[in-house]
Amino acid sequence: MAGAEELKVLGTRQSMFTVRVLWALELKGVEYEFVEQDLVNKSSLLLGLNPVHKKVPVLVHGGKPIAESKIILEYIDETWKQRPLLPEDPLERAYVRFWAAFIDDKLMEACRKAFATTGEDQAVAAESMAEALKLVEQELGGKKYLGGDEEIGYLDLVAGWIAYWLQFVEEVGGFKVMDSAKFPCLDAWIKNFVQIPSVAQSLPSPDELRNIFCAMRMAMQRK
Amino acid sequence: MAGAEELKVLGTRQSMFTVRVLWALELKGVEYEFVEQDLVNKSSLLLGLNPVHKKVPVLVHGGKPIAESKIILEYIDETWKQRPLLPEDPLERAYVRFWAAFIDDKLMEACRKAFATTGEDQAVAAESMAEALKLVEQELGGKKYLGGDEEIGYLDLVAGWIAYWLQFVEEVGGFKVMDSAKFPCLDAWIKNFVQIPSVAQSLPSPDELRNIFCAMRMAMQRK
Repeated sequence: MAGAEELKVLGTRQSMFTVRVLWALELKGVEYEFVEQDLVNKSSLLLGLNPVHKKVPVLVHGGKPIAESKIILEYIDETWKQRPLLPEDPLERAYVRFWAAFIDDKLMEACRKAFATTGEDQAVAAESMAEALKLVEQELGGKKYLGGDEEIGYLDLVAGWIAYWLQFVEEVGGFKVMDSAKFPCLDAWIKNFVQIPSVAQSLPSPDELRNIFCAMRMAMQRK
Repeated sequence: MAGAEELKVLGTRQSMFTVRVLWALELKGVEYEFVEQDLVNKSSLLLGLNPVHKKVPVLVHGGKPIAESKIILEYIDETWKQRPLLPEDPLERAYVRFWAAFIDDKLMEACRKAFATTGEDQAVAAESMAEALKLVEQELGGKKYLGGDEEIGYLDLVAGWIAYWLQFVEEVGGFKVMDSAKFPCLDAWIKNFVQIPSVAQSLPSPDELRNIFCAMRMAMQRK
């Protein structure tokens, strides 16, 4: 029987959506059990806990499942109050939610298109990606982190894939948008972000990511 | 000069995204100024306040703009605490956010596709829409409102377009998914929801919606 406070994360360590949840729990200092999932042959456990989207991550707290990584981050922040991830001020909360949605929707969608295509289509997608990255660069400005100068927050966790996964997406996809000369603030942020111990310890290996992105790209091009 | 507490909503009364913000302010009993926008010739005010998405609604509070309707609803709920829109419990909050995202993403995307297409493509989109509606029907179950039996909440406001806009989308688009026999709980919810005075007073006229959806469909089919 599940204990009232039993906490599990169903996911894979190669998934940028899973890892942002692991980061949040590490930052909060909350103990959890990681239940590695096979995304090729999805477990009946995963399908039962997230029947709508059938995706990782799923947080299971006292037997209750919560899906969708940004929603999980808000749940974690509301449930364990130590080391807040979102700012307290409603206006600042609205701004971080705005940029988190922008990064997960506009920026990631352009990135997906660049990854799935070649030639002219890829060039167009890479250009929209560059425009979106420029807005994130401006939002970051001179701050050390997206969450401010002091420490990382919700928005850094959501943007975390830019700091690590993106380089392998670009390498396997055969395009290059992230450029330290064009995006110096983001470049500095990446260097700071991946050195944070709670962040670094959950990063998957480059080879794991290369293998996964190669398999994904082949599957996309067969369509 | 903008007063510290001056509150404006930039939008159009035909926009389901704008109206959910008006509903929230009405329920909270907060006074605001409505600044009607022309979406064909977008004002420099709108472009300046929402340069990223260039879309309505924008809430402007004490001169500070907040964009994206679901984010605005959370801002309103965090700023004016009377008559809460989201539940207090973190798990329930996660569930309403999950379904709000589902309604705005999966369900609305299928609805957009059904609206923009004809023939086989439309039939396929209408089928995914029916599947998504079925999940909302199950989520509603025997409750009077999506927010519970007592009163409407955040999720009812987000789902509000199903209660009113959808019938005109279907009429103009030439398809029919919402069916009272197939979705009896949703049907009862629609009847209850549109009778709530704060809801009813902000509904646009059928003719306005028909005109707008006809223009949108023609524009989509020219592409």
